[in-house]
Amino acid sequence: MTTYSDRIIAQTIAALRFNTDGIIPAIAQQYDSGEVLMMAWMNADAVRETLRTGRVCYWSRSRGALWRKGESSGQTQDLKRFGYDCDRDTILMAVDQKGVACHTGRRRCFFTWLGDEGAEITDPILVSPEDLYGKE
Amino acid sequence: MTTYSDRIIAQTIAALRFNTDGIIPAIAQQYDSGEVLMMAWMNADAVRETLRTGRVCYWSRSRGALWRKGESSGQTQDLKRFGYDCDRDTILMAVDQKGVACHTGRRRCFFTWLGDEGAEITDPILVSPEDLYGKE
Repeated sequence: MTTYSDRIIAQTIAALRFNTDGIIPAIAQQYDSGEVLMMAWMNADAVRETLRTGRVCYWSRSRGALWRKGESSGQTQDLKRFGYDCDRDTILMAVDQKGVACHTGRRRCFFTWLGDEGAEITDPILVSPEDLYGKE
Repeated sequence: MTTYSDRIIAQTIAALRFNTDGIIPAIAQQYDSGEVLMMAWMNADAVRETLRTGRVCYWSRSRGALWRKGESSGQTQDLKRFGYDCDRDTILMAVDQKGVACHTGRRRCFFTWLGDEGAEITDPILVSPEDLYGKE
């Protein structure tokens, strides 16, 4: 896991352009295969926690709380590299995804692709959501 | 270039969850290398034009207009595949980027990465912005 000093964390948070809701989109890409796993949002606290711990932490807009990826499911994302774009308003991270990124039990959230007949589900379910989150 | 029928285009626009501003984030990934080139936004018209023409078209939030990628610079993105995520609120496209994706003249917009000393510019300028957009 890659972590950063408080100085670099403060510089990074100052550089990033959070939107009017105080959040910024963050893309997670598997560092070795290059597959784009997911896109979610971060606020300044999520960026700070991600860079301090080396474990990716998002901001859940639906729950209005920090979302330590994998804290319920065990499917964590270890940070390998942290970057941002020319406008400083989108984050791209190289991560090492443990298990599956998607709450549906698929490796990545991008499993729906247009084909000749319309939208197709391209990826298998690797872990059942019940096994990921426990039975309700 | 990959194009789609009016039926599939309508189904796709109906499936996507645009935000309250009527737009949705769209990630462009180079289809063969896997590099993430950029993230920008689309409205329904931009999705329609992208799927109809096979040339990626975004919505420019700053200009408030359709942004046919490459219409000024010639650096177009040919659509190879069009997908979206489990929440249907983020688009991922496999594209073939002609030339450079970034207005700074770099191949991709994600050229700033954290290193041991802080943010580092990792990618060279391949085309001068003057050559891309002409002298003002």
